[in-house]
Amino acid sequence: MILWSGVQILFAILDGCGFGLEVVSSSLSAWWCCGFRRIILNNPRKRNALSLAMLSSLQENLLSGVDDSDLRVIIISQGPVFSSGHDLKELTSACGRDHHTTVFRVCSEVMTLIQDLPVPVIAMVNGVATAAGCQLVASCDIAVATERSSFATPGVNVGLFCSTPAVAIGRSVPRKVAMEMLLTGRALTAQEALLHGLVSAVVQEERLEEETLAIARRICESSRPVVALGKAAFQRQMVQSRDAAYVTATTAMVDNLELRDGQEGIQAFLEKRRPLWSNSTEKVHD
Amino acid sequence: MILWSGVQILFAILDGCGFGLEVVSSSLSAWWCCGFRRIILNNPRKRNALSLAMLSSLQENLLSGVDDSDLRVIIISQGPVFSSGHDLKELTSACGRDHHTTVFRVCSEVMTLIQDLPVPVIAMVNGVATAAGCQLVASCDIAVATERSSFATPGVNVGLFCSTPAVAIGRSVPRKVAMEMLLTGRALTAQEALLHGLVSAVVQEERLEEETLAIARRICESSRPVVALGKAAFQRQMVQSRDAAYVTATTAMVDNLELRDGQEGIQAFLEKRRPLWSNSTEKVHD
Amino acid sequence: MILWSGVQILFAILDGCGFGLEVVSSSLSAWWCCGFRRIILNNPRKRNALSLAMLSSLQENLLSGVDDSDLRVIIISQGPVFSSGHDLKELTSACGRDHHTTVFRVCSEVMTLIQDLPVPVIAMVNGVATAAGCQLVASCDIAVATERSSFATPGVNVGLFCSTPAVAIGRSVPRKVAMEMLLTGRALTAQEALLHGLVSAVVQEERLEEETLAIARRICESSRPVVALGKAAFQRQMVQSRDAAYVTATTAMVDNLELRDGQEGIQAFLEKRRPLWSNSTEKVHD
Repeated sequence: MILWSGVQILFAILDGCGFGLEVVSSSLSAWWCCGFRRIILNNPRKRNALSLAMLSSLQENLLSGVDDSDLRVIIISQGPVFSSGHDLKELTSACGRDHHTTVFRVCSEVMTLIQDLPVPVIAMVNGVATAAGCQLVASCDIAVATERSSFATPGVNVGLFCSTPAVAIGRSVPRKVAMEMLLTGRALTAQEALLHGLVSAVVQEERLEEETLAIARRICESSRPVVALGKAAFQRQMVQSRDAAYVTATTAMVDNLELRDGQEGIQAFLEKRRPLWSNSTEKVHD
Repeated sequence: MILWSGVQILFAILDGCGFGLEVVSSSLSAWWCCGFRRIILNNPRKRNALSLAMLSSLQENLLSGVDDSDLRVIIISQGPVFSSGHDLKELTSACGRDHHTTVFRVCSEVMTLIQDLPVPVIAMVNGVATAAGCQLVASCDIAVATERSSFATPGVNVGLFCSTPAVAIGRSVPRKVAMEMLLTGRALTAQEALLHGLVSAVVQEERLEEETLAIARRICESSRPVVALGKAAFQRQMVQSRDAAYVTATTAMVDNLELRDGQEGIQAFLEKRRPLWSNSTEKVHD
Repeated sequence: MILWSGVQILFAILDGCGFGLEVVSSSLSAWWCCGFRRIILNNPRKRNALSLAMLSSLQENLLSGVDDSDLRVIIISQGPVFSSGHDLKELTSACGRDHHTTVFRVCSEVMTLIQDLPVPVIAMVNGVATAAGCQLVASCDIAVATERSSFATPGVNVGLFCSTPAVAIGRSVPRKVAMEMLLTGRALTAQEALLHGLVSAVVQEERLEEETLAIARRICESSRPVVALGKAAFQRQMVQSRDAAYVTATTAMVDNLELRDGQEGIQAFLEKRRPLWSNSTEKVHD
């Protein structure tokens, strides 16, 4: 098991494959290694509130180097709290309607960016994820959580209904589950979140890193352009009618087969050997 | 625990906060108290069949006083059976196509009205909910059911496929669950209904009232215009594409912050005190 | 319990009701009996790969006699493996883009045909269903699986993201479950598939036939045109907005009541007798 916390991370990465360490803001840091980058929400004093500064920094970190063919997965993790959602100090009337609009616009951009990135994004959660923090989990492609984690949209209790989190959560869990969360603010336990599809796996706290990295490594073992093409097609077809979705997906399959790695995978399978990915977006007949 | 059945209800309400008792028809009655109104389906002889008269009465009761700022939640509950669905006597060919059309039109109006009301509607179920009765549960925002409750769409067995209930049920549970219910008429147990998101909670029979009222009280503790705005935005964005949904939801958030109660909630949070809701739809800068 | 495997099937059917046996290709066979037809994927040497020949044969078998009023349910079952998905030999670049397009187009036609047929289609699964094989399960109306069955979309591991299977799977299970299957190739166990709505029931291996046939018989006890009308309305309304869906479904209900069997069912219910279905599409006032 690789330990990511504190100094041990750096050595572990260094031993394995070299590393990049980038402190983007006082509250967010990103490591990149062997195909996966890790973005750590780390402003415990503010319970990782998604202030405009934090959101902008997250956006910048998500986008940075995203076209680098070595980047294969992004893991969003945390200090002691995952995230408590928006910073309410930025939402007082003193800040004004324009500022409020900017906060929610940037927040929506970050959430949709996660789904539109060419690499999968994994949320690694150990603790409380509320409001926009819960939306962040819902927006990731995969989420691994510890037993003690919980998920809530309690905005209604402070007079601010979680309408933007509801976009992501309403598309992740059954309608009645979303409605009860939104109308009452009740938190889902990790097991309830798993049951209803808000998270992909629930693990013991001491195995969180190991299990999350195992998924990340599995993704690193596949071809980057194949994953990028498939993830984009999924987002595109899911909002279409069934028949239109099949037209979109059929084109995606045929395009996939024209990728060098599409053919390499099939050849390797037929020859019963491991595939050797180019991770290049070149087509076979280019 | 407050007992709602028989005379004890009236006293319980009277003790707590005064009450209104309104017998709307022989088969439906509505109480209103402390922010929550209770509509009781009470025509056990006909197993609470949703006849045109019952549907019209339900519609009238749902709408009555809905703009009163004291009304915060509606609870739809029952006599011995929740509801067995349409009254088949109204669906014979003798009644004619026009009458049939009216029955289903009014039924659809009631079901969509529930979702479009500015206050949350909770179904409190203890027993069998079939066909349009099951649709009624699926259409409510929250549903609490006892262990012995069951949920079915058995119309296919009497030659009338539950196509209108399927609109609500197909949007509440996974597609294959809906399909099996519709094609075979098999009933879901309460636990299965919980698992698949058709109900929000399953409780022991003796705790049904207590648990339902606890949810209702929790809703009463939040601001009415905030809940109204949030519920409406949820319905609106859920049928949109993700990006359009975020535009809708962002506007909802910003509008929410301009409500007097939006700002009161944030101020109260920052000042670590309980918010004092005006429940007024006035804007801060009005 | 009726045994369907080997010679015993034929006798069992013969005893019960006479039978039709049709060997459509070396790898697919179809029996038809008492209202239900059984299509057996039977090319174990190729792990029931859905080659173009297999897909075309499946399409032909699904359509054959579909307007016969005796046909009430189709069961798709298997030899030792349910299906391993596309035949990768047909997807090499040597076959060319046109051939690839044809494979995925025909595959999409088969999957949507299953949902558009006037009779319910049940998948009976005992083993591994991967890629297009998993899509086939997701596309059926009902699916019964044994405990040892598993469901995966591992195309990403061979460089071909399961984009077309994702259309059916993304509409069957929660988004995060679909995403993890697609991005990592991890298989769902039968119990996970049940939990997330990919299959309708999980049974012990020795009860697979019995449980599947019990569902088929239940469907055979209802009226064919009623089921056809209801199934078609379900598919139509599920891609519409809620309000448009209610218009579609209201028309379906009223049309249903004009069917001879619509009225027969209601009369039988009111007279407390078993209905006698005509299975005719005639209207009452024709």
